[in-house]
Amino acid sequence: MKVAVIGSTGYGSAELIRILEQHPHVEIGALISSSRAGEELSAAFPHLSHLAIDLEEWDAGRIAERAEAAFFAAPAGVSSRFLPELAEQGVSVVDLAGDFRLRAGEYKEWYGKEPAPEKWCNQAVYGLSEWMGDQIRQARVIANPGCYPTAALLILLPLLRTGAAVQGPLVIDAKSGMSGAGRALKPGSLFCEVNENLFPYKVGSHQHTPEIERYAGEIGGQPIPITFTPQIVPMNRGILTFVYAPAASGWTTKKLREMLADTYAGHPFVRLRSEGEWPRTKQVQGSNFCDIQAQVDSRTGMIVAAAAIDNLMKGAAGQAVQNLNLMMGWPETAGLQLHPVYP
Amino acid sequence: MKVAVIGSTGYGSAELIRILEQHPHVEIGALISSSRAGEELSAAFPHLSHLAIDLEEWDAGRIAERAEAAFFAAPAGVSSRFLPELAEQGVSVVDLAGDFRLRAGEYKEWYGKEPAPEKWCNQAVYGLSEWMGDQIRQARVIANPGCYPTAALLILLPLLRTGAAVQGPLVIDAKSGMSGAGRALKPGSLFCEVNENLFPYKVGSHQHTPEIERYAGEIGGQPIPITFTPQIVPMNRGILTFVYAPAASGWTTKKLREMLADTYAGHPFVRLRSEGEWPRTKQVQGSNFCDIQAQVDSRTGMIVAAAAIDNLMKGAAGQAVQNLNLMMGWPETAGLQLHPVYP
Amino acid sequence: MKVAVIGSTGYGSAELIRILEQHPHVEIGALISSSRAGEELSAAFPHLSHLAIDLEEWDAGRIAERAEAAFFAAPAGVSSRFLPELAEQGVSVVDLAGDFRLRAGEYKEWYGKEPAPEKWCNQAVYGLSEWMGDQIRQARVIANPGCYPTAALLILLPLLRTGAAVQGPLVIDAKSGMSGAGRALKPGSLFCEVNENLFPYKVGSHQHTPEIERYAGEIGGQPIPITFTPQIVPMNRGILTFVYAPAASGWTTKKLREMLADTYAGHPFVRLRSEGEWPRTKQVQGSNFCDIQAQVDSRTGMIVAAAAIDNLMKGAAGQAVQNLNLMMGWPETAGLQLHPVYP
Amino acid sequence: MKVAVIGSTGYGSAELIRILEQHPHVEIGALISSSRAGEELSAAFPHLSHLAIDLEEWDAGRIAERAEAAFFAAPAGVSSRFLPELAEQGVSVVDLAGDFRLRAGEYKEWYGKEPAPEKWCNQAVYGLSEWMGDQIRQARVIANPGCYPTAALLILLPLLRTGAAVQGPLVIDAKSGMSGAGRALKPGSLFCEVNENLFPYKVGSHQHTPEIERYAGEIGGQPIPITFTPQIVPMNRGILTFVYAPAASGWTTKKLREMLADTYAGHPFVRLRSEGEWPRTKQVQGSNFCDIQAQVDSRTGMIVAAAAIDNLMKGAAGQAVQNLNLMMGWPETAGLQLHPVYP
Repeated sequence: MKVAVIGSTGYGSAELIRILEQHPHVEIGALISSSRAGEELSAAFPHLSHLAIDLEEWDAGRIAERAEAAFFAAPAGVSSRFLPELAEQGVSVVDLAGDFRLRAGEYKEWYGKEPAPEKWCNQAVYGLSEWMGDQIRQARVIANPGCYPTAALLILLPLLRTGAAVQGPLVIDAKSGMSGAGRALKPGSLFCEVNENLFPYKVGSHQHTPEIERYAGEIGGQPIPITFTPQIVPMNRGILTFVYAPAASGWTTKKLREMLADTYAGHPFVRLRSEGEWPRTKQVQGSNFCDIQAQVDSRTGMIVAAAAIDNLMKGAAGQAVQNLNLMMGWPETAGLQLHPVYP
Repeated sequence: MKVAVIGSTGYGSAELIRILEQHPHVEIGALISSSRAGEELSAAFPHLSHLAIDLEEWDAGRIAERAEAAFFAAPAGVSSRFLPELAEQGVSVVDLAGDFRLRAGEYKEWYGKEPAPEKWCNQAVYGLSEWMGDQIRQARVIANPGCYPTAALLILLPLLRTGAAVQGPLVIDAKSGMSGAGRALKPGSLFCEVNENLFPYKVGSHQHTPEIERYAGEIGGQPIPITFTPQIVPMNRGILTFVYAPAASGWTTKKLREMLADTYAGHPFVRLRSEGEWPRTKQVQGSNFCDIQAQVDSRTGMIVAAAAIDNLMKGAAGQAVQNLNLMMGWPETAGLQLHPVYP
Repeated sequence: MKVAVIGSTGYGSAELIRILEQHPHVEIGALISSSRAGEELSAAFPHLSHLAIDLEEWDAGRIAERAEAAFFAAPAGVSSRFLPELAEQGVSVVDLAGDFRLRAGEYKEWYGKEPAPEKWCNQAVYGLSEWMGDQIRQARVIANPGCYPTAALLILLPLLRTGAAVQGPLVIDAKSGMSGAGRALKPGSLFCEVNENLFPYKVGSHQHTPEIERYAGEIGGQPIPITFTPQIVPMNRGILTFVYAPAASGWTTKKLREMLADTYAGHPFVRLRSEGEWPRTKQVQGSNFCDIQAQVDSRTGMIVAAAAIDNLMKGAAGQAVQNLNLMMGWPETAGLQLHPVYP
Repeated sequence: MKVAVIGSTGYGSAELIRILEQHPHVEIGALISSSRAGEELSAAFPHLSHLAIDLEEWDAGRIAERAEAAFFAAPAGVSSRFLPELAEQGVSVVDLAGDFRLRAGEYKEWYGKEPAPEKWCNQAVYGLSEWMGDQIRQARVIANPGCYPTAALLILLPLLRTGAAVQGPLVIDAKSGMSGAGRALKPGSLFCEVNENLFPYKVGSHQHTPEIERYAGEIGGQPIPITFTPQIVPMNRGILTFVYAPAASGWTTKKLREMLADTYAGHPFVRLRSEGEWPRTKQVQGSNFCDIQAQVDSRTGMIVAAAAIDNLMKGAAGQAVQNLNLMMGWPETAGLQLHPVYP
């Protein structure tokens, strides 16, 4: 099956191409980049100089002729304008941006942009693969989750669904490697400004906050305000997220871990670490795994729970392909049997 | 004045020597290292090959002859045995280890070692310079705070003392550069295991937990259980600590910031960042500064507060010298006017 | 076909396992580790916790029953003792150590260990895939090239074979990421000692020197003394090697580049960069590519030529699998269509 | 004495301010930045938020009223236009850019800009402190050496002056941390593009090449063509440079080392490492030291020599202050007794 990638010069696209190139059921049909159309892919990504592919202009009709599915890997605000045209021509679409994840009002408030058409927002299925599999299998448009929400929800949802976490001030402290910031030119993204540095940003105002809250409510069953603090760590890839919440009565570390094991039985990409062993970002680097762990701090009665992912894989391109697999009825792991790159 | 450094081959000692070598009132009288006595300092620290100093055996009498003050920069368990002998000879001592920071029972429980003699534990003053100045000026033995507790308490104590933070599940999420782990040879400390990695350790069981709790009670006036999660970030130096606590009624970001400005007026090493600007570890690297910031997340009612330090400076050697300055009646900043090294 | 890996707890083995697990013609039959036999693979490599494989004791008979081919990924001195026993049972072997790459006298001099039995040394084929393909296809024992020699020879051999480089003082300045040093516990390998540092080691005495010289002579046709300076760069993976040699008369940048293009036509893993574009280690990271470039510095008459590889892939495990593919008559790229991981 | 810094928002300026702020004989009189005049220094350098200094417009008259000496730390092409006006008013000037280092024709060719007025070019003294001390003491305008030339010449000049190195194809392979590239916004300077990467640039065409050649001739007495290859290493600070040249007859490692020891006796900032120990960039980080080493490779007859500096200190701001000290008749080390920051 042929697929297209729209917005083909960012890190998420490079990762999509890396996966698709060795996916058993897929072939790249078109790479679209408005800003660099006409150039070779290798002008944007010299590491892919062995692939002779040209970047092309956006043209929904031509894409639809040459691809049955497409990934939007463009910045926020692009897919809301262009995706419907492609979807209407029968192309199955996975959108890696935030345009179809929020209700219109929230999108406007947190992204400061015009929301996508309501009809398509309603049709889009939130692509948190492990929790939305049934809906994803039926879907034609997938709103692929953000990198922070993926890690946060995979560890948070079981706590909410089972009532392990008491409603209350729920804290999410998350740290990401720098590729999450994309390839845009900003003074604060220079090597010397990030290397040997650790810093928070958008404290209390990150656009992934309403996304976590919305699906904590819709999937987890508990609409709950979340204090969310993202931070940048001097590395390329990886997210490590801690969730802190008061434990409900009767919940012990043992019970928590059993519940997590049950929840993710049959889900090959979620690995519950052994007791006492905590997720490390390097252990999932380059792979689609999400490693998780949780304990009850018996001194304080708090649940301490963590998840680690590669932000470009399970946090973006990997989960996007996992969702395509589900939509197409292929094995969930097709093209994703990439083991972590270590060290 | 001549000073001695005991335990002279770790990173904390290298930093002490860097400061002392350009301190206007101090000269290095003796460097003690049991494991490498007889070698030159440059065998342990080739970057100091321009200093012709030999490492010597421990001999309290000889040290007391040649130094009026001493720093213990040895691993836990050393100063508890050797410090009293030196202090009894009239030498003023700053201990950088944890041996004199906790009550005997807690020390035994969290460090798994025999505690220091009670008499000396009682005499030791906790060297959190900005909060214990009056006691430090009178002291002969200083228990220099741990790196995590320094950052945590400098931002937490104002919240507790003013009642800004409601008692409740108090969460401290802290990240440190790798030099905090010292120079010991462990598989997990190899470059390839730490680089491009981010990982928690001793979750719920780090020995700095009871230290924070004790002084949150004794100085902050609120004995409070703390959920503490330390993490290692792939960089050499720096600690960034977030404190999360429910805000008491009436506390806004504005009021919080005014209170912090008041609290640290006249304290040159604590810098309240401008509103909306958060501490970054690189901005304090190589200096004795502690940068702080706080806000009330109006959506959730939580106080989000942060502090950044260089773990080897304000978190160890820098604060140790600051405490010596206070003990000796010198200007607090003597020898510490080292600006951050940037980038 | 089942294969075994002997010496299964180093970085080279982790990389072999990453490749073999998704190789279309291969299955892992046994993982041998004397030091950790009886443990699960995930005890050594937590990032592979999804693979339920146990580490086993060395037992040539049992291995031969369960594997038709084997990789030795142990430190120098192991394969010289154990490999013959396995090869005698008809198992095809690729040795990633240096034991079978040198003549006995040189091995003794540069490695300071007892050389392998002469009979097997003579039988072993040097596995520089692009240059020794015909011999490799016939071989039963492969001496897989060292990481530095792979990069050095791939750019040096064409210069020697064509006479582009005049015999004379030939300089090779090479830099490697830290994984080349392996997983052994040494003070100089600690994160804080390597991070933000750049340093040479074994200047003029690295054991890869005679390997480069031998095959520069045997394959390149010019026995030539080489000044070789290895250096460590603060990153996990990657080797960048510069070769400096006086240009023979008549050689221009254009002629050099045409010659290189000809030399490696039909060799999918060697990529000649566009004119003016130089190899970068990140552009081959995680892949089996070797990127090359060369020019004549018209001001000085010197050839400046460079090659970049991932030291664990083309410099170790990747080339080892490439050699297995050649030995077995499979496509050279089988299992190696891993695109660079970027960023 | 009051000094001014012109071009105050780059990394070189930050380093100058770090030094000047603790220099015993100097006070900062004015910080000039055309692009950010009117802003506070801390807007450009938040790590210096404790210094309340404003950035000002260029105004030669006003600067001359308030400063007896000035540093130009602006990009190439600025000082050639503005420095003469200031120097004419009697202000002693150290220029950190390349504008006064080359002859007019070479400057035009390698920098592609209009050269500085000939009169001032002729008057400017090349500020390689250890070699030009007598001239620097008399000078009013100093052309502070480039970062690469400083390291290269400090190890190369002794070889040339003593005839240890035979004229011939002289190779300089140099690697630098990223701060050498400055703070300009370029896609290739983003964290994710540099981290875990090692790459050459301007191979054979770097503008420091003619600078090394010129002073190799003028100071070293041997006009000699140089093959120069600069490379970027993923770290903030540090340059490590290797020089390769055929050894003249009779030169051994022992004789080389004795010669180097003699050459730099009495020069406190050059440290000859012990035999067999090679310079490492981290061992000079944050300091004005230049560490050197050399040997004769007896197998090949080549001299292998190396120098390491901190590119922002001895390679820029540190040497600039060293030169000011010499000009003013102060101790050469005034304000520069900053020990390496380790780790």
